Amino acid sequence: MGKAKRIKVKQSILFTKTKKDISSDEISKNAQLLMRAGFIYKEMAGVYDLLSLGLRVMNKINGIIREEINQIGGQEIFMSSLQDKTIWEKTNRWSDQIVDNWFKTKLKNKSELGLGFTHEEPLARLMKNYISSYKDLPLYIYQIQTKFRNEKRAKSGIMRAREFLMKDLYSFTSSREELDLFYEKAKQAYINIFQKCGIGKITYLTFASGGTFSKYSHEFQTISDAGEDIIYLDENRKLAVNKEVMTDEVLDDIGLNRKNLVEKKSIEVGNIFKQQARFSEPLELNFIDKDGQKKPVIMGAYGIGPGRLMGTVVEVRNDDQGIIWPKEITPYQIHLLEIFSKNKAVTAKAEEIYNTLQENGIEVLYDDRREIRAGEKFYDADLIGIPIQLILGEKNLNLGKCEIKYRDTREIVVIGIKDLLKVVQEFYQD
Amino acid sequence: MGKAKRIKVKQSILFTKTKKDISSDEISKNAQLLMRAGFIYKEMAGVYDLLSLGLRVMNKINGIIREEINQIGGQEIFMSSLQDKTIWEKTNRWSDQIVDNWFKTKLKNKSELGLGFTHEEPLARLMKNYISSYKDLPLYIYQIQTKFRNEKRAKSGIMRAREFLMKDLYSFTSSREELDLFYEKAKQAYINIFQKCGIGKITYLTFASGGTFSKYSHEFQTISDAGEDIIYLDENRKLAVNKEVMTDEVLDDIGLNRKNLVEKKSIEVGNIFKQQARFSEPLELNFIDKDGQKKPVIMGAYGIGPGRLMGTVVEVRNDDQGIIWPKEITPYQIHLLEIFSKNKAVTAKAEEIYNTLQENGIEVLYDDRREIRAGEKFYDADLIGIPIQLILGEKNLNLGKCEIKYRDTREIVVIGIKDLLKVVQEFYQD
Repeated sequence: MGKAKRIKVKQSILFTKTKKDISSDEISKNAQLLMRAGFIYKEMAGVYDLLSLGLRVMNKINGIIREEINQIGGQEIFMSSLQDKTIWEKTNRWSDQIVDNWFKTKLKNKSELGLGFTHEEPLARLMKNYISSYKDLPLYIYQIQTKFRNEKRAKSGIMRAREFLMKDLYSFTSSREELDLFYEKAKQAYINIFQKCGIGKITYLTFASGGTFSKYSHEFQTISDAGEDIIYLDENRKLAVNKEVMTDEVLDDIGLNRKNLVEKKSIEVGNIFKQQARFSEPLELNFIDKDGQKKPVIMGAYGIGPGRLMGTVVEVRNDDQGIIWPKEITPYQIHLLEIFSKNKAVTAKAEEIYNTLQENGIEVLYDDRREIRAGEKFYDADLIGIPIQLILGEKNLNLGKCEIKYRDTREIVVIGIKDLLKVVQEFYQD
Repeated sequence: MGKAKRIKVKQSILFTKTKKDISSDEISKNAQLLMRAGFIYKEMAGVYDLLSLGLRVMNKINGIIREEINQIGGQEIFMSSLQDKTIWEKTNRWSDQIVDNWFKTKLKNKSELGLGFTHEEPLARLMKNYISSYKDLPLYIYQIQTKFRNEKRAKSGIMRAREFLMKDLYSFTSSREELDLFYEKAKQAYINIFQKCGIGKITYLTFASGGTFSKYSHEFQTISDAGEDIIYLDENRKLAVNKEVMTDEVLDDIGLNRKNLVEKKSIEVGNIFKQQARFSEPLELNFIDKDGQKKPVIMGAYGIGPGRLMGTVVEVRNDDQGIIWPKEITPYQIHLLEIFSKNKAVTAKAEEIYNTLQENGIEVLYDDRREIRAGEKFYDADLIGIPIQLILGEKNLNLGKCEIKYRDTREIVVIGIKDLLKVVQEFYQD
């Protein structure tokens, strides 16, 4: 079952090529770098395709998210984008005056449909089929699915797109206490996810508005000058408050002291929200409790945009040469650069090393292109940003050696080929 | 990397429950069974959500497709649904008079967008960035991505949906000969895919219309009374012709004899099409050939709807009790039914067997529900349709035995628990 044959990934076959420049209308750093390096393609403002390299990064991010959300009991589904307006009218979220970023469309019979910008309404209706008693609760349902939001301006690259993947998790519980318990678990899962995606150290739990139904919600904010948010951060306590809600009263309440706070621009990479009965009441998602009483199911919502997360990682991890992927979500683990000579033995040796790495489960992008000069290969490799570049040239190979360049520190070391696998495995096992 | 912890899947936790009946407006057998068994949920006519069990089946189908398409050189990407009308105007496919199943929507600034019903136009534009010379060809690009089609009627369940996943592969070659070569490879990959999905024996390569640019296209048609197509089949030669194109002239040309043909209703599960320069010419996707001449890139398109494939499997593999999944795409490999007694040792033993199976990589759905009678568990298991039911009752367990029911043949055998793993592994290794 599922034993996929290993596919060779040689750069001579990879359809994308790097670009020195891209169209000048793209002003965001993340999209500029991702477009130049061949990870994404821009269809129009706020709408991007994932190309081979970009899809690999996205799949790794989604894998990390799935692992963490499954651990806390999440059950994965996949809902439609097309939305039936009747359920959105019940929660008063259909009108364009109230929700200003709907994309709407029509069936042949002229009836209006929406394109989902979130999924509380359809999921609450769906769950009415499966929840009737307290014995059916708690339940935690999530999906990684496309959302559509008709943003007036879309100028932050893949960080604020009009069409984007979102991981949305919803909790269904029988009481506020049960919600609170799960909320804390979800918080920890989110911390783990950002840690594993390589931005844990600069991502902060942030108090934000709770709307009309909860005192606060929480955002996860990653410090970056490209951010659209402003937070006040207590670095010692690893806790922040969004400027939107910061008052003396709030600071008192959450135990932060104004004099310990620094103002930072930041990117919201996730948010968690106690919705209580905001959606279950109008949609009549009820259950019979132990005491025989009918009560509305208590809901929470927990969102991460994997595309925005990818854009954020690129914003905070790059240099003049290009992207610097964290090892957890790099498209490949090794970028093998074969420096061609007229000696066929070099190519044979490079192939042998490539095969050995692959057989040991190392993901290798092999730059085997013959007509490309070494300088261009180095340029491309720095732009693409795989953490380890493995440079195979004739002189070193003849001595049984190879060169490794660490993308992050730009450190270059020459090691024996016999030690290569161990060095790579140790790097990725940390 | 990617070592996901194994998640226990107990039916007491699974959020879906089976239904005896579903709303009477659903007339298709595939959607009826999939809805009753908890694989899908119907949002509206032609629009379905995948629930946990359904998503597992879909992921297996997609895994089979990816493996085969990667083998023939496919590179996976993920394109947007939102479509820029300018490129569709160039190919004369924007007008609702010409393409009658567009869903269209609007940006805030009132400019019109489409929701992709296919992706030749945007992909041809994208590839202009990466194709300039014959040296860049051939390339094979695919995605598994949501399509939107505004069907006037949607009454075939998940076989003709308004929103559905599609695997669309496109080939880019420098000549018709190169296209022909790849076309044959794609044909074989498709045969392999349908074989692996358990419908190979009743799925036939079928000559169909080639449009204005090719003599024929090929469809893969699965024999089923639920089908919307009619084909004429030569069973000995495993070859068919779609009624739409069957004339004496065509039969002569493709070497089929009318007297060997039988009429069958069938479901189109895949199609492959030589598009030649139909899209590359209007979109100016050109390359410089070896002779220095500028030429349009020659394209082919190759589609499979994984959702329709899932619906087809259900249409052709069911009985009065429910679905009968083929082993290759079953949501789980074993449905473990614990028949409760007051003896706690039974539960302990069932847990032990469950853990052993999981540790050996067998996918188990464990019906551990305490308040459900044995008869209901059997009913559910037959409806859900996992190939092997493992029935653990006190009497057998005390004798070191367990009962296995094969869903397909309904054969029941009692085997020693010590032989269980071997029996299961042999069943799935065939």
